[in-house]
Amino acid sequence: MHAKAFEYLVKNDLLKCNVKFLIEGEEEIGSPNLPAFCEAHKEMLKADIILVSDTSIIAKDIPSVTTGLRGLAYWEVEVTGPNRDLHSGLFGGAVANPINVLAKMIAAMTDENNHITIPGFYDDVIEVSQEERALMAKAPYNEEAYKKAIDVAELSGEAGYTTNERTGIRPSFDVCGIWGGYTGEGAKTVLPSKAFAKISTRLVPNQDHEKIAEIFKSHFEKMAPASVQVKVTTLHGGQGYVCPIDIPAYQAAEKAYEKVYGQLPVPVRSGGSIPIISSFEDILGMKSVLMGFGLESDAIHSPNENFPVEQFLKGIEAISWFYHHYKG
Amino acid sequence: MHAKAFEYLVKNDLLKCNVKFLIEGEEEIGSPNLPAFCEAHKEMLKADIILVSDTSIIAKDIPSVTTGLRGLAYWEVEVTGPNRDLHSGLFGGAVANPINVLAKMIAAMTDENNHITIPGFYDDVIEVSQEERALMAKAPYNEEAYKKAIDVAELSGEAGYTTNERTGIRPSFDVCGIWGGYTGEGAKTVLPSKAFAKISTRLVPNQDHEKIAEIFKSHFEKMAPASVQVKVTTLHGGQGYVCPIDIPAYQAAEKAYEKVYGQLPVPVRSGGSIPIISSFEDILGMKSVLMGFGLESDAIHSPNENFPVEQFLKGIEAISWFYHHYKG
Repeated sequence: MHAKAFEYLVKNDLLKCNVKFLIEGEEEIGSPNLPAFCEAHKEMLKADIILVSDTSIIAKDIPSVTTGLRGLAYWEVEVTGPNRDLHSGLFGGAVANPINVLAKMIAAMTDENNHITIPGFYDDVIEVSQEERALMAKAPYNEEAYKKAIDVAELSGEAGYTTNERTGIRPSFDVCGIWGGYTGEGAKTVLPSKAFAKISTRLVPNQDHEKIAEIFKSHFEKMAPASVQVKVTTLHGGQGYVCPIDIPAYQAAEKAYEKVYGQLPVPVRSGGSIPIISSFEDILGMKSVLMGFGLESDAIHSPNENFPVEQFLKGIEAISWFYHHYKG
Repeated sequence: MHAKAFEYLVKNDLLKCNVKFLIEGEEEIGSPNLPAFCEAHKEMLKADIILVSDTSIIAKDIPSVTTGLRGLAYWEVEVTGPNRDLHSGLFGGAVANPINVLAKMIAAMTDENNHITIPGFYDDVIEVSQEERALMAKAPYNEEAYKKAIDVAELSGEAGYTTNERTGIRPSFDVCGIWGGYTGEGAKTVLPSKAFAKISTRLVPNQDHEKIAEIFKSHFEKMAPASVQVKVTTLHGGQGYVCPIDIPAYQAAEKAYEKVYGQLPVPVRSGGSIPIISSFEDILGMKSVLMGFGLESDAIHSPNENFPVEQFLKGIEAISWFYHHYKG
């Protein structure tokens, strides 16, 4: 999208600023190498603003700019019971089953209000003011359509918060994968030796993913019964991010969407994480503006992930307007 | 073992009774076809007693006869949340995660005393008398050796019962397998569509596996939150069994072990299940005597399952003595 935008801008002599390209291919695994690259090339990467297109808009006809991102901490846990798979008849009832134990440990991580129970987990969470929550509530939201799109009868989340607040301004706890014991066809009566899970928490700005990684690890190790051994490996992490809406770059983005969509974009807090955005801020001291054009129907991180051509063309147009309007 | 025993008995004209062979190859999957075969051939299978070698003895130098078997009920459960895997950032916190939900459902199936919480589950459990428990307690048991053999720091089971009681006279609840979401290498931030588990309960004599299968199914369906859909499939089941120690066949077995091991066998209740044994009783009206020769070190249902040649040879000898001593 960006390359096409520049083609247009340069051809028509509309480009008002210098531009540097940075192409990243490891974002989905948390950009393990890009921070070191930034450290090593601060001068080369120096700029007034960073423009990133890795986000979505509310709907085809409702433009939005992502002004906040959640952080992330992600672990793999391993629970070991007996030193080999046992016959569930001969040992069942007398020896701790690592799957039963892991299920109890996961279950205990959230309470009946879907509040995360890890001690200290919420210590650095900044409660968003009632005023800001009231503004967020103005963003269009159709619960029936939301439920229908993913085919669930009921939504579920932290008590006392709306859907947009649950994904935008509150942390979350998800088991991304779990496995252990016999998973083939039919029945095998085994008391397995091991059970595993991939566990992630989404964090909000001001929560430090490294601190969260540590408190999760020590909590998980502490809560394990003496009948099993546990191992916790941190796989991935990133800080949250907030983009102020009163900086010139945000205002250029607003104008750009307005030109293409005929209305001002809604500033929204996204539940997703783009770890490198907060690294850019820490390492390079630069803010990023997130001009994305994805739609909820893109099914990202799912089978049949897609990106509509119409959004691609509108993106080219909007990005061109951004560079046209932006004055650092 | 049996064939070799007959070779010896017939050669030496020591066989005192007629014998019919029945060879079963589906025991590990619950003998789905043998009951129908028994129904269809009652006359052909008519006998005074059934002798089965599918059990273990306490130790190389401590013979035992299994006089009780636990029953079994086994299910596969499927928990479905959203209609596709979702991005855990964009949806995490607002949409029920089927792995989180399944973990809570499994955790809720047993309480802090490892007592099974399924309503009605214990209704038909016959409490074994203090007298019988005192006799059982005479069976040799070395907790340190037991823990060392499977390399666990602590045992875990239903409060108020010993290890042998937990596996012999009490039901148990084990998740034999679990899977869902991303289970590959590294981190994938997904809120999965589905989670699965293979769940089994070991039952004690007088608990009906079909009744238990039903109450589990309805309980699991009832306890599921409206944010997910659940499916329960019963995969496998069998009734428990008890063999009286005052019948001639048991006494012949006692003599046989005594001849080979120099001491009377200890009558023990096994935690395992051999569903066909109770089917034999129901369909053919015949008791079974369980003369097995396995050892705990056989690692049954595990990698490197094995059977020592010494036990094989002793089995041939003991089974020969059984047929020699048995008078229907």
